[in-house]
Amino acid sequence: MSKPLVFPALEQFVAATAGRNMTKAAYVAVTSGVIMMLLLTVDPAYEAAHRWVDAVLWACLNFFVFEWAVRLRHAYYAERLWGYALSGRGLVDAVAATAVPIALVLGANPKTAWLLGVFWMFKVVPGIPGLRQLRRVLVLESGPLLSVLVIFLMVLFVASVVVHYLERDAQPVAFGSVPATLWWAVATLTTTGYGDVVPITPLGRLVAAFVMICGLGVFGLWTGILATGFAAETRRDNFLKTWESVSKVPFFAALGPSAIADVTHMLRTMDLPARTMIIKKGKAGDSMYFIADGEVEVDLPGKKVRLGEGAFFGEMALLGNNMRSANVTTTRVSRLLVLDLVDFRLLMARHPDLAETIDAEAKRRALENK
Amino acid sequence: MSKPLVFPALEQFVAATAGRNMTKAAYVAVTSGVIMMLLLTVDPAYEAAHRWVDAVLWACLNFFVFEWAVRLRHAYYAERLWGYALSGRGLVDAVAATAVPIALVLGANPKTAWLLGVFWMFKVVPGIPGLRQLRRVLVLESGPLLSVLVIFLMVLFVASVVVHYLERDAQPVAFGSVPATLWWAVATLTTTGYGDVVPITPLGRLVAAFVMICGLGVFGLWTGILATGFAAETRRDNFLKTWESVSKVPFFAALGPSAIADVTHMLRTMDLPARTMIIKKGKAGDSMYFIADGEVEVDLPGKKVRLGEGAFFGEMALLGNNMRSANVTTTRVSRLLVLDLVDFRLLMARHPDLAETIDAEAKRRALENK
Amino acid sequence: MSKPLVFPALEQFVAATAGRNMTKAAYVAVTSGVIMMLLLTVDPAYEAAHRWVDAVLWACLNFFVFEWAVRLRHAYYAERLWGYALSGRGLVDAVAATAVPIALVLGANPKTAWLLGVFWMFKVVPGIPGLRQLRRVLVLESGPLLSVLVIFLMVLFVASVVVHYLERDAQPVAFGSVPATLWWAVATLTTTGYGDVVPITPLGRLVAAFVMICGLGVFGLWTGILATGFAAETRRDNFLKTWESVSKVPFFAALGPSAIADVTHMLRTMDLPARTMIIKKGKAGDSMYFIADGEVEVDLPGKKVRLGEGAFFGEMALLGNNMRSANVTTTRVSRLLVLDLVDFRLLMARHPDLAETIDAEAKRRALENK
Amino acid sequence: MSKPLVFPALEQFVAATAGRNMTKAAYVAVTSGVIMMLLLTVDPAYEAAHRWVDAVLWACLNFFVFEWAVRLRHAYYAERLWGYALSGRGLVDAVAATAVPIALVLGANPKTAWLLGVFWMFKVVPGIPGLRQLRRVLVLESGPLLSVLVIFLMVLFVASVVVHYLERDAQPVAFGSVPATLWWAVATLTTTGYGDVVPITPLGRLVAAFVMICGLGVFGLWTGILATGFAAETRRDNFLKTWESVSKVPFFAALGPSAIADVTHMLRTMDLPARTMIIKKGKAGDSMYFIADGEVEVDLPGKKVRLGEGAFFGEMALLGNNMRSANVTTTRVSRLLVLDLVDFRLLMARHPDLAETIDAEAKRRALENK
Repeated sequence: MSKPLVFPALEQFVAATAGRNMTKAAYVAVTSGVIMMLLLTVDPAYEAAHRWVDAVLWACLNFFVFEWAVRLRHAYYAERLWGYALSGRGLVDAVAATAVPIALVLGANPKTAWLLGVFWMFKVVPGIPGLRQLRRVLVLESGPLLSVLVIFLMVLFVASVVVHYLERDAQPVAFGSVPATLWWAVATLTTTGYGDVVPITPLGRLVAAFVMICGLGVFGLWTGILATGFAAETRRDNFLKTWESVSKVPFFAALGPSAIADVTHMLRTMDLPARTMIIKKGKAGDSMYFIADGEVEVDLPGKKVRLGEGAFFGEMALLGNNMRSANVTTTRVSRLLVLDLVDFRLLMARHPDLAETIDAEAKRRALENK
Repeated sequence: MSKPLVFPALEQFVAATAGRNMTKAAYVAVTSGVIMMLLLTVDPAYEAAHRWVDAVLWACLNFFVFEWAVRLRHAYYAERLWGYALSGRGLVDAVAATAVPIALVLGANPKTAWLLGVFWMFKVVPGIPGLRQLRRVLVLESGPLLSVLVIFLMVLFVASVVVHYLERDAQPVAFGSVPATLWWAVATLTTTGYGDVVPITPLGRLVAAFVMICGLGVFGLWTGILATGFAAETRRDNFLKTWESVSKVPFFAALGPSAIADVTHMLRTMDLPARTMIIKKGKAGDSMYFIADGEVEVDLPGKKVRLGEGAFFGEMALLGNNMRSANVTTTRVSRLLVLDLVDFRLLMARHPDLAETIDAEAKRRALENK
Repeated sequence: MSKPLVFPALEQFVAATAGRNMTKAAYVAVTSGVIMMLLLTVDPAYEAAHRWVDAVLWACLNFFVFEWAVRLRHAYYAERLWGYALSGRGLVDAVAATAVPIALVLGANPKTAWLLGVFWMFKVVPGIPGLRQLRRVLVLESGPLLSVLVIFLMVLFVASVVVHYLERDAQPVAFGSVPATLWWAVATLTTTGYGDVVPITPLGRLVAAFVMICGLGVFGLWTGILATGFAAETRRDNFLKTWESVSKVPFFAALGPSAIADVTHMLRTMDLPARTMIIKKGKAGDSMYFIADGEVEVDLPGKKVRLGEGAFFGEMALLGNNMRSANVTTTRVSRLLVLDLVDFRLLMARHPDLAETIDAEAKRRALENK
Repeated sequence: MSKPLVFPALEQFVAATAGRNMTKAAYVAVTSGVIMMLLLTVDPAYEAAHRWVDAVLWACLNFFVFEWAVRLRHAYYAERLWGYALSGRGLVDAVAATAVPIALVLGANPKTAWLLGVFWMFKVVPGIPGLRQLRRVLVLESGPLLSVLVIFLMVLFVASVVVHYLERDAQPVAFGSVPATLWWAVATLTTTGYGDVVPITPLGRLVAAFVMICGLGVFGLWTGILATGFAAETRRDNFLKTWESVSKVPFFAALGPSAIADVTHMLRTMDLPARTMIIKKGKAGDSMYFIADGEVEVDLPGKKVRLGEGAFFGEMALLGNNMRSANVTTTRVSRLLVLDLVDFRLLMARHPDLAETIDAEAKRRALENK
């Protein structure tokens, strides 16, 4: 089933949003839409410029409706209409496109209806770089995190009951019921401490002091768990990303699988946009680079040399000469593998054949550049 | 000494609570009991529905009394009455069953007596998954944690004395005695900062600023210690759980003990309820699974294959094909061992024989499915 | 130069305080002294019981003066008078003994003079278990910690100047000068947030929001640094303590130095007072113990067996039987080396000879106990 | 192009500032300048001493102008005028020298113009020891940190919209528009909690409680990420610094490259100023030292021995004698490599030849000192 090209430019534009990141237009729409939604609620600003505010809001809404429609159509022709419509992405698109119109149709005050524009922000979520990593940490550590949450809730409830009992006669309004006291307890246990409601009896204050210290403890546990999970996840993530690239670099191809695992632990992946300066002449440097993907340009005196996939550069800095001798810039989007001095030494020690290759190439280049 | 089966259904019901987790009925009783206890203290709510509130509270209390009675009887016939009655569990059950009635008998105001229902919450404690781990961390790191607590107390007392001295003339009510000043100090050192009492002299504020910065330091130390302890404990816990399962998988049986320890470090245990989808067709995947316990169903085109203990699946994702080719679902409660891509590579490098087995099986399956 | 025994009982009493920990009497004196100092400042309490408060305070002071005098005398006869007097300990003792009397002699109001009794608390410092470890972490990580402190101060000053500029016309009292604004800034940057002074202009609030977020960042850096330092220090500390003990256990004597380093990493040192139950019959267990120092009593059915230095126990739990079969209690202060199940498996794999020894002994014991 | 020596003493003075650290004079100027700037805004203080305040401020300003001028001149003769002028350092110098005069020339109130003196503080930045390390952590972990920031902003905006909707009727001033509500939200989500604006409706408070708990979570994630990054960076930094030094110590020269990498992991670099006591006689010690650079003096009974580059000392403490037997002091700025007892044992086990060398030298010294 082929798809008729009604609006080729638009198709192309929307097709670009099918990947993980949003189009620039979508970012602009989300940002300006949310800002206008904020201004709408500020009476003097809205009175002064209500035409502009309304115009931008409607433009943004139309953009999102249109985006959703095109995506639905795209998914329909790709025979996965429901797959898209019920995915997280599809639901976010649907809510962004329909929430405000539905509220308006149901007769809500426009100022209230447009508040639903805050859902537009969720369209940004898939574009956040480290989100997947964050989610994995939360999932893997969910056991201990839940325990801390339960402890948190228990301290909260017990403290509320006790302080309600101690303070209800002294302050019948603020501490007259347990739910009212919970408001005080949550502000205290999270160490927010509004101070709008505060115990005044000596015993109530003693319990409050204990609650605050528990707050510190809960905080510490929470952070400790997340730090642990993060450390493990970062290691894992970096290995995965690097492994894939290492196997594409011919330089490492001669190594056995165990040596490749070893090398992978030493390298770090770096994704760079086009026209980024990687090495600046005259700066101190302590790492060398392998090109896993893309191309760089070395700005030697008198000529420019281009290095492609599988090549390496910056090795001089690791072989005694700490000052970079030429600018190196990417010519297009590139993925580099970075080898720090620390790990270069280890690599040299464990895989002397690699060391020789690098050394020979360095000498050849030095000779050539003279 | 055998036990007469008076209420077989009830026996059975309560026997189910003898394990680590509570019955669902108990969760319902705790939740609804605590909510009703909250409502009891809210005068308008209680006036509107006092019959319902009272009824639920009495029902919950009766449930806990009954649960305790049956457990005592059970323990008596198992000849460990005191062992149960004096254990943490037994005491929690006893307090939950008797606290409110005793308060009522002693003539307390019913609204006050029912507040003791907050103790019902503690019945949830044994069911919290990561609690044992939390406790081990607190015990192992108790030395440094205590040090930080003592430092905390010292800063608290010294700051209180100094600020009392500096502020007592300016604010005789709030800072007129050291105990009164302690209230300010604890709210400040925990960075809660109610703001109900605040130093106003320049020197008092200087000391207060120092106390706040100390608060940050105490926080940092606290968290640092807990993070360290948690990292060690998580590693240990995971190893223990996995070790047990690894030794049951025939696939790893041929390995020597040192290789098993090695493999154990690479695997992660995952407990799943029945009818849980582990692999979703068409999703990207980067881990394979060994079945330590239970059974899964692979939903191949045209037929359904069941895999039991000792089998593995999901290996395709690690052998070049990143897209999952079939849904896999558990048929009953199962324990799986997860091997991530990272560790799969290491395993391949260190134990090439395992790699060959997996490879051969993968080829056989691919052939069969064609 | 020998020392005349004027007060042998007192000498003995004070000599006991020469070690790292305080005597129990000193703990009592510090605690009761500080509590009385607190009560002294509470007018109603002091009026009701001024005789008692004064009596306890003078008694505590006399105790500290006497302690200091005896220690000075002791140091004099040991020919290290100045070594003691100028050490941290000696200075703390001197301040505790002389601060209050000097203040009284100089004509200070007694209520003010006794406030100096807060210095008594510092006598507790050398007895805190993990303090040395804390100090090492702070010293080793002082570089990054100082950097964070400088960043903190910079944000503080720049924010104060900017907010002073923005708010001075709107709130001339609270933000009229930079030092006054610093008070607001420190309460905000530490996320204490008293709320006694708060910016009200839109721009002032924008800067304040930025300061709060910086506060989170400073917090995070601080904690991250401390957590890192703590992890390294804990590893080091544990290794040192354990190494010493391992070399004293004959069981490990046959191992070469590299294997001992290996084993040391697996063991954990545990210091226990006399009459502490280590293993409770019927509980699940997952670790075995080596006695580095001291003695334990195994409460077997019908007889009690004592095990001394170099012996091990609890190995059954690691050899298949998870339920502890006897109570084990220390008979005197003992140092045990704990081997967790995790590490037991690794040890078995790497040092099969040790495994055999443990296995043989376990069988011998099982036979004997039948 | 040689440079005429117009003010040799001044040249010399300013040349000293070309390195990474500031001259002492510059520290004095920054500190006194900023303090005077603070005093300028305190009306009573300024009235009492306005001559002094003005004089110091002008002196500081002149100092910075002069410093900048000399540095520009220096850079001009070194043919890198723009390199310096546009570097971070150069821009900070330029702002410090010109901000206040420009403001005064533009007709700003002097009290306002001098506030720009707060920029002088930035001159301290290059002298902060761990700043480079901090920056690397922030760069390497920028992905997850940004994710957390985006989550933070989303919670902030959604909470503001919801609470604005819930509270706008009850509190039209504080919650009447979304931007006004953002002020409350940021103070709550960072757990600062001023309490100047607080929700009062039950639903508003429920959302607020949720925001506070999210605040804890954001905090925890933030810290966890930074802790992870810091641990990796510290390891890397230490290795780099130590590697350089190890290769200069002849004692380690005989080792192969893999063994040097091994040894480097065990050593820690320590930079000491002249006349610093490293070892104090009679103290307990658990580390030995290698001199990578500089010289130390060992204060033996009757004679003083000097040890230069490549020598080691303190080994007695690791060979059974825990009490240090002589004072050791640096005679000039020195870089030492510290080997802790832990690692000494490992070194002995893995490189027995090094152990023998140390042992032989220790015996020779013991013999000699008798």
